[in-house]
Amino acid sequence: MIDYRILINSSLSEYIESIKHPNLKEAIAYALMPGGKRLRPSLTLTLLGDSGLDPAEGRYVAAAIEMIHTYSLIHDDLPALDNDDWRRGKPTLHKKFGEALAILAADALLTDAFAFFTKGPLKPEVKNALVSAASKSAGSNGMVQGQVLDIESTHLPLNINQVREIQLRKTRDLINLSVISGALIAELDPIVLQKLEEFSNNFGLAFQIKDDLEDQKERTSLEINTYPYLLGEEQARTLLKTYQEKSLLIISEIFGEKELYQLVARTL
Amino acid sequence: MIDYRILINSSLSEYIESIKHPNLKEAIAYALMPGGKRLRPSLTLTLLGDSGLDPAEGRYVAAAIEMIHTYSLIHDDLPALDNDDWRRGKPTLHKKFGEALAILAADALLTDAFAFFTKGPLKPEVKNALVSAASKSAGSNGMVQGQVLDIESTHLPLNINQVREIQLRKTRDLINLSVISGALIAELDPIVLQKLEEFSNNFGLAFQIKDDLEDQKERTSLEINTYPYLLGEEQARTLLKTYQEKSLLIISEIFGEKELYQLVARTL
Repeated sequence: MIDYRILINSSLSEYIESIKHPNLKEAIAYALMPGGKRLRPSLTLTLLGDSGLDPAEGRYVAAAIEMIHTYSLIHDDLPALDNDDWRRGKPTLHKKFGEALAILAADALLTDAFAFFTKGPLKPEVKNALVSAASKSAGSNGMVQGQVLDIESTHLPLNINQVREIQLRKTRDLINLSVISGALIAELDPIVLQKLEEFSNNFGLAFQIKDDLEDQKERTSLEINTYPYLLGEEQARTLLKTYQEKSLLIISEIFGEKELYQLVARTL
Repeated sequence: MIDYRILINSSLSEYIESIKHPNLKEAIAYALMPGGKRLRPSLTLTLLGDSGLDPAEGRYVAAAIEMIHTYSLIHDDLPALDNDDWRRGKPTLHKKFGEALAILAADALLTDAFAFFTKGPLKPEVKNALVSAASKSAGSNGMVQGQVLDIESTHLPLNINQVREIQLRKTRDLINLSVISGALIAELDPIVLQKLEEFSNNFGLAFQIKDDLEDQKERTSLEINTYPYLLGEEQARTLLKTYQEKSLLIISEIFGEKELYQLVARTL
């Protein structure tokens, strides 16, 4: 399996180096590095490779998607939202740098991401489509809507359709942006884009159920608005398997069992 | 004087109507409407009119700039930043809707703004230049840097150069985006763009000094990091006059004493 993390991290380092204010730079570097699996930008670059393009063409787009993902985690962790003290084994940004700088560093990440969609040698039409797709996936009817639904439902018992809706917005939309961005850069057929959206639905939900199942073991308090709680563990595992198989099937139909197939198989 | 507020507000209403989640929509509508002077988008549209274009061509760009301005005010008002309870005679967004929804509504405004830069019939190259300019003006080396400098300097005595630097980032950069956006849409000469940046420096600082002088009368506590405090009221008024005259001179040289000249004269 090709590992694109070096390419992703070098684009993110280039971004960090461009920030002039020392404390803001330090906070943003703390949030971006060393980072996690880099799943979302890896989806973009792996899709480019499987489409026969040089993945380096999408390096700034991949970095931009990771920047948007990181901004969303920072705001999500704030005391007024999830009030999390830890992320990836480190104190969260607001615990380390204070709430004001955490809010502003995330604002900068989101804002700066859009310049990265228009950076580099891509066609103007492709850049516009990327900006528009990113804005829609992350905006009021996308990821932010998911966060709003999530905070509104804390401690409220939801049904499985409501949980699904939150997961689609919170997780699926940015995963969908990752694959659609690759498809836009590779100028894939609109029919393929439609199939990729279906892939995102299946992959996004599978990814969330897997996360919920793994979290269940570690968690001391009970999370009620999850698939394992609402369906029972066995049925949740069955549903995970269905979404996994569907995800892999769609990718194998489009690209064959190449790098993207391997990445999806390894992730789910 | 032509008043573009109806055109700006109708574009913003179109945006508000596109938001699906009821509470998020209500919060964003509360933040955007009825709004203030709409100075920034009016600068953009007035410049288009003076350049011989139909200002309606820039309606989504103007709305996008107002959305970015509004997001910045919402985050600026948060308890972790300026902790303001009132804005334009109404409770601030977090006082009315809670901190979580205020943070997220502002995130949505910023994100959605970028889709608006790529909306409508402008050329793809122009749209890209607008997105890039907006990201740079509002991002880590622009407006966000100004906010970081501002929170870092609270209660610290600054010198006039440090105050100037904060005002350039906090106020000038978005005003500059407003005029540069108009110039990009009208495809004005790069030499004119350079002159407009000089205008923004003068206008932005004049706007801030005028605001400081007006605030001084109303304020009960003493703000030390302002031009009137650091220079004395008389010298601040002299400096305001210099910046006013320079602003008007540049605009009259580019466009003559038309609508933009009138708007600048009326604002300062």
